[in-house]
Amino acid sequence: MTIKRPVIVINFKTYPEASGISAVELALLCEAISSETGASIVVAPPMLDVALVAKSVRIPVFAQHLDPVDPGSTTGRVTIESAKASGAVGTLVNHSERRLKLAAIHDVIDRCEKVGLETIVCTNNLPVTRACAAMEPNFVAIEPPELIGGNVSVTSADPKIVSDTVEAVRTAGKGVGVLCGAGIKNGRDVAKALELGTDGVLLASGVVKAKDRRSVLRDLVSGMSR
Amino acid sequence: MTIKRPVIVINFKTYPEASGISAVELALLCEAISSETGASIVVAPPMLDVALVAKSVRIPVFAQHLDPVDPGSTTGRVTIESAKASGAVGTLVNHSERRLKLAAIHDVIDRCEKVGLETIVCTNNLPVTRACAAMEPNFVAIEPPELIGGNVSVTSADPKIVSDTVEAVRTAGKGVGVLCGAGIKNGRDVAKALELGTDGVLLASGVVKAKDRRSVLRDLVSGMSR
Amino acid sequence: MTIKRPVIVINFKTYPEASGISAVELALLCEAISSETGASIVVAPPMLDVALVAKSVRIPVFAQHLDPVDPGSTTGRVTIESAKASGAVGTLVNHSERRLKLAAIHDVIDRCEKVGLETIVCTNNLPVTRACAAMEPNFVAIEPPELIGGNVSVTSADPKIVSDTVEAVRTAGKGVGVLCGAGIKNGRDVAKALELGTDGVLLASGVVKAKDRRSVLRDLVSGMSR
Amino acid sequence: MTIKRPVIVINFKTYPEASGISAVELALLCEAISSETGASIVVAPPMLDVALVAKSVRIPVFAQHLDPVDPGSTTGRVTIESAKASGAVGTLVNHSERRLKLAAIHDVIDRCEKVGLETIVCTNNLPVTRACAAMEPNFVAIEPPELIGGNVSVTSADPKIVSDTVEAVRTAGKGVGVLCGAGIKNGRDVAKALELGTDGVLLASGVVKAKDRRSVLRDLVSGMSR
Repeated sequence: MTIKRPVIVINFKTYPEASGISAVELALLCEAISSETGASIVVAPPMLDVALVAKSVRIPVFAQHLDPVDPGSTTGRVTIESAKASGAVGTLVNHSERRLKLAAIHDVIDRCEKVGLETIVCTNNLPVTRACAAMEPNFVAIEPPELIGGNVSVTSADPKIVSDTVEAVRTAGKGVGVLCGAGIKNGRDVAKALELGTDGVLLASGVVKAKDRRSVLRDLVSGMSR
Repeated sequence: MTIKRPVIVINFKTYPEASGISAVELALLCEAISSETGASIVVAPPMLDVALVAKSVRIPVFAQHLDPVDPGSTTGRVTIESAKASGAVGTLVNHSERRLKLAAIHDVIDRCEKVGLETIVCTNNLPVTRACAAMEPNFVAIEPPELIGGNVSVTSADPKIVSDTVEAVRTAGKGVGVLCGAGIKNGRDVAKALELGTDGVLLASGVVKAKDRRSVLRDLVSGMSR
Repeated sequence: MTIKRPVIVINFKTYPEASGISAVELALLCEAISSETGASIVVAPPMLDVALVAKSVRIPVFAQHLDPVDPGSTTGRVTIESAKASGAVGTLVNHSERRLKLAAIHDVIDRCEKVGLETIVCTNNLPVTRACAAMEPNFVAIEPPELIGGNVSVTSADPKIVSDTVEAVRTAGKGVGVLCGAGIKNGRDVAKALELGTDGVLLASGVVKAKDRRSVLRDLVSGMSR
Repeated sequence: MTIKRPVIVINFKTYPEASGISAVELALLCEAISSETGASIVVAPPMLDVALVAKSVRIPVFAQHLDPVDPGSTTGRVTIESAKASGAVGTLVNHSERRLKLAAIHDVIDRCEKVGLETIVCTNNLPVTRACAAMEPNFVAIEPPELIGGNVSVTSADPKIVSDTVEAVRTAGKGVGVLCGAGIKNGRDVAKALELGTDGVLLASGVVKAKDRRSVLRDLVSGMSR
């Protein structure tokens, strides 16, 4: 499966407001908005809910993390193969809240490519982004750590890191997509991200903790067509 | 929820034969056997399948691992709260394939007790078992590492470690249950485990990779009433 | 080598004021005070300085951490055997700043006992202390995390956890010593620790960052004979 | 300090034959050979021996691993600053026996550059090498894992990975040096490594476990002038 670009990726993290049955509800809402607007929306629910959510919606479901280990005697790990069996079509890799060893990042990218899962590798600065792009995931997602969970969008607070990331990744060729994240809240932020050359955005609390999720999602999507 | 003793705990690990839709199928079979025999059977499916399995069966579903972290900004982790939200009623802790820091084991036990999840802490030898029992989980499960995945049951290969574990844990009082695992394959092994004083067994490949799972499950359960 | 009780253990951590040549200087000062007073003082210098410090003083030198791995192909790890070869006579284990897996704690205790190194296992609360005592290290050292690095001694802020620890460990028998740490600053704190039944104290900044280390050390030692 | 190229880097790992006083002896021998031939030789002794070895020889001493943490409350860790205080002039990073998180590799490179320590980042394949070179350490060292500790030199078994690495790193510019390792045993292997375009070699058992270390070292050095 190839994720359609531009894309809005919604990370449910482990918020109680988006766990269990609430994960299914939020995924269904994302599906509804995607359906009514044609926008490409990816959801990454809590780990335990991946199979249930994947069974409940037709939009792409990502894992938040996978372990580069073999299937079988790896209790408590989440294999690439099990993600596929459970209906996931991709995974976040190296999220700032779940940093991985370099060799593991490469191994996850490699294993996912073999079974047809897409990878979004999260990065924290330009040298690390260049390093990740060199391993050719489907996407890199730049998220300056000091802006994560804040109220100011990375596209306003540090547009240069976004455009520098785009330039560095494009220069390397290979078709690696670029997302940006941290502080993304509305359609204006999305529009700015695309204007800076990215292929979309990655966000979490902006949707999960919103009072009116439907309005927020519609506003975010509206930024894709400005 | 209190797990009825004696109990057979079936760890699906990350076997492809017990992932995704196959996890649901195996859990349904366990439910059927539990239903027809009255035996207490717990299933621990792959992480991504927990919510789906929990939604599909009424027997107790355990996670294979949980992280002692707070809900929210813990992408890629599996919180105690999310396990509860997804329908799990307990968790394996410190499985030999997913060893934890001591402080984390205590923290998981503590957090699970607070929200009403049961804990089965896996151990590898007598001193470590004593250490775990001192933290008062619901169960300890002794699994000598050299016997895991083998063809000889711990109850035949090393009955002394099982009875020593039972004695050490009973002496400490506190009502901590004792399971044993490694090489458990049939009803005779289960009967021997109970005879040695345990409250049940923990097994994986003996069921997951069996050609005729239904027969194996019935035979295992038969060991509980010998 | 058996550490003489009661004992004052000084953890140099990775303070620049106690690294490299400054580690040797501070160890020499501790040796001088030990020599003039007869007090039992143990030093735990930064990892890279262990062999140099051990070569420079005759008081016992501990590592701050050891890895339970085999000698040879374990680049960047610190083996039990290399600690012995470098002149260390013991090690801290599971310090709050370097928590270990339960299985690793047991393995370090076991390997150290085999080659004759002493172990001080750090713990954060009563259940974890009981767990550690069950594995029979030479000492447990209780350090409530909320008091570490603070100005109030654990012996004043929470005397009950100290006496409860002493009772729990004594009850288990086995001759495991008890130390306490966190906020220890002067002879009064040492005297109180011994009065509560401990075999000594573990401290760091109280000595390392003191303006007049000689006076502080003399004062600490004076608490041992009150 | 700038390491003179070409260079032979000798990793003592945690071999008992190169620990404690034996670490000092081997380092002194390397110094003697360096002195008599003018060859650039770097030694990486066991962690606990770094300060003692650095005090004993004038050739460059590297740590085998450093932690990207701040000095102070980081017991049991090895800070960049403490390495400098203890006389090290550089460090191995991400050795196959001590793999690091990607963010940590970047952080170590960054911190080392700030205080003037050199970095040799070990890699296992071409994409990972490209990733590491993008973070601009002083050197990358390619060591195919399947050849490590074996009897066939990487320069014979897989000359293409060595020349591809050289090409990839040179293309990126930035002056990053290239070393190769795995199975390096004699002067012929060294000569071949330089012929393939590298700046030197990284080896361990070939020297540490040699019966006649002096002869082996002389032979290795002879390969630098063929």
